[in-house]
Amino acid sequence: MRSFAGRDILSLKDFERAEFAHIFEIADRLEPIARERRNTDLLAHKTLVTAFYQPSTRTRLAHEAAMHRLGGHVTGFSDAKMTRAGDFYQESIKDTVHMLEYYGDAIVMRHFQQGAPHEAAKWASVPVINAGDGWGEHPTQVLTDLYTVLSEMGTIDGLTFLCIGDMRMRTMHSIGYALSQFDAEAIFVGPEEMSLTDDFKAELDERNLQYEEAEHVADVIHRADVIYMEPVVQADYTAGRDERGEQVGMTPENYQVTRKLMADKAKSDSIILHSLPRMDELPPDVDGTRHARYWEEAYNGVVMRMALLALVLGAME
Amino acid sequence: MRSFAGRDILSLKDFERAEFAHIFEIADRLEPIARERRNTDLLAHKTLVTAFYQPSTRTRLAHEAAMHRLGGHVTGFSDAKMTRAGDFYQESIKDTVHMLEYYGDAIVMRHFQQGAPHEAAKWASVPVINAGDGWGEHPTQVLTDLYTVLSEMGTIDGLTFLCIGDMRMRTMHSIGYALSQFDAEAIFVGPEEMSLTDDFKAELDERNLQYEEAEHVADVIHRADVIYMEPVVQADYTAGRDERGEQVGMTPENYQVTRKLMADKAKSDSIILHSLPRMDELPPDVDGTRHARYWEEAYNGVVMRMALLALVLGAME
Amino acid sequence: MRSFAGRDILSLKDFERAEFAHIFEIADRLEPIARERRNTDLLAHKTLVTAFYQPSTRTRLAHEAAMHRLGGHVTGFSDAKMTRAGDFYQESIKDTVHMLEYYGDAIVMRHFQQGAPHEAAKWASVPVINAGDGWGEHPTQVLTDLYTVLSEMGTIDGLTFLCIGDMRMRTMHSIGYALSQFDAEAIFVGPEEMSLTDDFKAELDERNLQYEEAEHVADVIHRADVIYMEPVVQADYTAGRDERGEQVGMTPENYQVTRKLMADKAKSDSIILHSLPRMDELPPDVDGTRHARYWEEAYNGVVMRMALLALVLGAME
Repeated sequence: MRSFAGRDILSLKDFERAEFAHIFEIADRLEPIARERRNTDLLAHKTLVTAFYQPSTRTRLAHEAAMHRLGGHVTGFSDAKMTRAGDFYQESIKDTVHMLEYYGDAIVMRHFQQGAPHEAAKWASVPVINAGDGWGEHPTQVLTDLYTVLSEMGTIDGLTFLCIGDMRMRTMHSIGYALSQFDAEAIFVGPEEMSLTDDFKAELDERNLQYEEAEHVADVIHRADVIYMEPVVQADYTAGRDERGEQVGMTPENYQVTRKLMADKAKSDSIILHSLPRMDELPPDVDGTRHARYWEEAYNGVVMRMALLALVLGAME
Repeated sequence: MRSFAGRDILSLKDFERAEFAHIFEIADRLEPIARERRNTDLLAHKTLVTAFYQPSTRTRLAHEAAMHRLGGHVTGFSDAKMTRAGDFYQESIKDTVHMLEYYGDAIVMRHFQQGAPHEAAKWASVPVINAGDGWGEHPTQVLTDLYTVLSEMGTIDGLTFLCIGDMRMRTMHSIGYALSQFDAEAIFVGPEEMSLTDDFKAELDERNLQYEEAEHVADVIHRADVIYMEPVVQADYTAGRDERGEQVGMTPENYQVTRKLMADKAKSDSIILHSLPRMDELPPDVDGTRHARYWEEAYNGVVMRMALLALVLGAME
Repeated sequence: MRSFAGRDILSLKDFERAEFAHIFEIADRLEPIARERRNTDLLAHKTLVTAFYQPSTRTRLAHEAAMHRLGGHVTGFSDAKMTRAGDFYQESIKDTVHMLEYYGDAIVMRHFQQGAPHEAAKWASVPVINAGDGWGEHPTQVLTDLYTVLSEMGTIDGLTFLCIGDMRMRTMHSIGYALSQFDAEAIFVGPEEMSLTDDFKAELDERNLQYEEAEHVADVIHRADVIYMEPVVQADYTAGRDERGEQVGMTPENYQVTRKLMADKAKSDSIILHSLPRMDELPPDVDGTRHARYWEEAYNGVVMRMALLALVLGAME
């Protein structure tokens, strides 16, 4: 297996099964640090650079928190619009990276353009971590999610994943690639205008992932071990409020997972993941069911980034 | 006395006299670290999460600086508008907190909605510190202020506080509650439309605080030991500038404390506190009088947050 | 030589030759820490306060990265507009500084107003570093640049600097003052409306700097050892894009340094510096020539700030 020291984390497309297993094992070994809430000094001598061209508080803070748990330093920017005259929007990635690479020892980048972190990695002398690139991928989120599945279910092999959301989005790409390394099935449910692209389907076929598409969650939820959710509606909150300011339902029933649906049709031991924030596709009363595992997922968001940072910065082998 | 380890700091309403005394004592013990400008490692293993839904540079940086003085780590956000599509404005506090609690070991929250930190504390597995919640309270500021009074005057008991400002505001609430634990009197002076609400008056009566209201600072300043000020005008700077761009007086004389007023009427040993920023209610030439103690107050802002963080994070008992 | 401990870095106007030499020597001694990418703990007990009234990602992050490399803590703000109601825009520097000085042990300030850091230094009990003040100066950038020249050329004495850009700008002021302490010549090339002010020319004369002005880079580049560049066009990107969104040339040829010009006319051992970001005055294909040293300059941006912070905070003598 290739060493992770100095390596970029750009895509799950080229991750092999043993590499998933190795990352999960490192996460298991570092998890007690997070659980005991006691920062260590494993990376005290290292600095993480956050290069967020778009705000993403969860993803940014999960990386920052992970670095702090390992005793490291953090610098960077959380919104490129806030930089001088929006320079970074226009400046070539090469120019920007030849600055950022001196500010620290790894760069975590969220970018509105697909492929931007790959371009950055081409020029950087330090590891680049893709924290979401436009429609591209979101590898650290999906590693978090699969680690949560493994922790909660004891396995990924043999499971059926019901993936609900916008199939053109980066998270769906990453989970599609990742699941092909496991003996797992996927059922994708999303609005027609957000369905899997032909290109992506061809990739999934080539990778021999068993998958299908469905129109309504209720038709397939009985088969799911893992219910993997994302919003299918935009966060246009004003549109979804009535005259008293109360939020009203906007997500079509096809893409909602309710307490009643879980009780009526879901497998008894199925779990629900959602990277949050949520709209009304996942009503809050589901939180009180045994299926909800999104808080564990949020917690694992820090644990997984600890593992990735420790690996690419060479503190764990 | 209840231990402060793991405890939320939400309101001064439920603080007892011995708890004030204990916090002031811890502040006294930690103060040399700030004075000698030498960060220690008391909280090196801990991370503070700043959750500022509204910007507040002084309050945020005072907490951050305190954490750094204790060797700790800091992560978070300084303006929720800067987060993804304003998510945090709309997301339930519960959902947000089930993310933030994993990023660190205490959460300091400024929120535009009264009660938001209390709601956060309900869900968080880590201590929540209220850094100002709408019209609600501002406990850490008032603890800072009373600590300054104690340091400068040697006592809080026996003093008369002249409180000038917007009586509907959180700081006035917190100081009202706090003073009721001391043998202190309060005189409130503010514009009629900003006067004490009936509800708050009822609370003060029930707590047996001796207080009165007055219309003009000049009528009562001779009785004051502590002059406790806030702006009564909004920071609409354009409105207050003449055609040459010079700022012109906007605060009515009733709520101004000038050098002349201090010389003419104030007690010789009275002190002035102001949490800043100021408008024209406190002209800069007052800085050069012996009464001014707002720089000491600013300094104590860091010391008090060191004490609170050390206590709630269990590093001091 | 005056000690640097506790000293402000406001201007290069009053820097003496031996002081430049001393700073460069300290930079040489600290440089291995940056090269080996291993944060030390030289300033672990200190906190840097970043007070950026205007965003400037490069300058801010270079200081932050330097502080982290020395094991220190960082707090502050990166854009005053993001603070409460723009308070800091209107608040007196004195009031702001009497808050910031308690948050850490040195303040690095970028301000839109010339002289603001000087005003801050008047009130602060901690060292103030000028990170660019309006049209004023940019001492840390120019120290970075001259350190790069020394590292790359082995000397500053005896060299001819071709300075291309806006001659009214702070960087040109700082380099003008600095070069007068070396046996160096300067040739200034910029658009007429951006030419050297009479006041600044008088200062250069009084300081006995040998300098001249020229209209076209091509006329004088053969004499240059160091080509010191800044953009002469504003970053109004929309104006410079054609209907396909491609950026089109905007910088007049007079102020451009192209690969062809270098090959045709430049000295064989001349070097090009540019603090970036760049517009089209320096096309990317120049990066692949032996003259380009702006990545080294970016790297030295961290090294120089390490030296300055270590000096003013008294960790190196």
